[in-house]
Amino acid sequence: MTTIDNGVNVQALLEARQALANAPEAAQFTWRATSQWRNGVHSTTRIQQFHGLGQEQSHKAESVFEADHPAVFAAEDNGITPIEYLLVGLAGCLTAGVASVAQNRGIQLRSVEASVEGSHDIRGILGADADVRNGFNDIKVTFTIDADASQQEIEALVAQSQKRSAVFDALTNPTDVTVEVAPSNG
Amino acid sequence: MTTIDNGVNVQALLEARQALANAPEAAQFTWRATSQWRNGVHSTTRIQQFHGLGQEQSHKAESVFEADHPAVFAAEDNGITPIEYLLVGLAGCLTAGVASVAQNRGIQLRSVEASVEGSHDIRGILGADADVRNGFNDIKVTFTIDADASQQEIEALVAQSQKRSAVFDALTNPTDVTVEVAPSNG
Repeated sequence: MTTIDNGVNVQALLEARQALANAPEAAQFTWRATSQWRNGVHSTTRIQQFHGLGQEQSHKAESVFEADHPAVFAAEDNGITPIEYLLVGLAGCLTAGVASVAQNRGIQLRSVEASVEGSHDIRGILGADADVRNGFNDIKVTFTIDADASQQEIEALVAQSQKRSAVFDALTNPTDVTVEVAPSNG
Repeated sequence: MTTIDNGVNVQALLEARQALANAPEAAQFTWRATSQWRNGVHSTTRIQQFHGLGQEQSHKAESVFEADHPAVFAAEDNGITPIEYLLVGLAGCLTAGVASVAQNRGIQLRSVEASVEGSHDIRGILGADADVRNGFNDIKVTFTIDADASQQEIEALVAQSQKRSAVFDALTNPTDVTVEVAPSNG
């Protein structure tokens, strides 16, 4: 028997599924980010702490991200645009899903590459046309996968990843977002 | 007269709005990301090129992002989770909007901090409960802003930023996402 190893601990995930099915409160996670405005449209966002499994948790390191607009928007291009961060999340989520599902199905992956394109009519955010939405018109993801599996099995991996993807859901279905201003000290 | 300077070139943005209202094809942008699976649920995503104003464009530098799952998900925590990237994008987009609108309204900002929380029931992605969605349950953003303006004016800045935010729209409204597998060479 060949040993399949994509580096995913599927046993632990199956045990978590079982455990959390009976402990829904432990399954409630809160992910957090804090950002500081720098100058112009440049901001710096930091992520480290989160809440889950009933207690505070921490990534092993703080991650720091710069967001800005490019020179063609008359800005300084100190980082990618905010909307591009959505593509990073989508690529990472679907890829993680492919690896997990492949492990569970006993399929050895050799390489997985995802190419993501988001089309965006910027007349929306500029206020140039009220009929144009602010966000992406649509997003297209293309996977190129080398694995010990048929094309049909690979397509099934990708389909199952999509079905369980947090980011795919967050982009294809609406989420309630509340934006508030803390009372000033003045 | 006091000179307001938040570092946003509002004049250029107003000129772009005018120019693109009459040149809709130039307003069609394509943002791109490519990701490589590393091991387990760890992937690396790179962003540099995009298309807009009728031609290929490039950020001044390539940006590289690691996505992984934390130790509590039996993974190696080589980077933030994919879904946390959505919070980075949301914070950056709303903050950029606050700075731009403040500049346009002649309001000097001194500091802008955003705290973002996304609540997430992970029974969805684990497949532990078919009634739980995969993405966020909801997201809350809290701004703390120090500016030469009243609380009411600050709240109006944030409301206008939300109204023109690409990422706020992408998270609160559905986007069509197509996922395909390139034909294998085999």
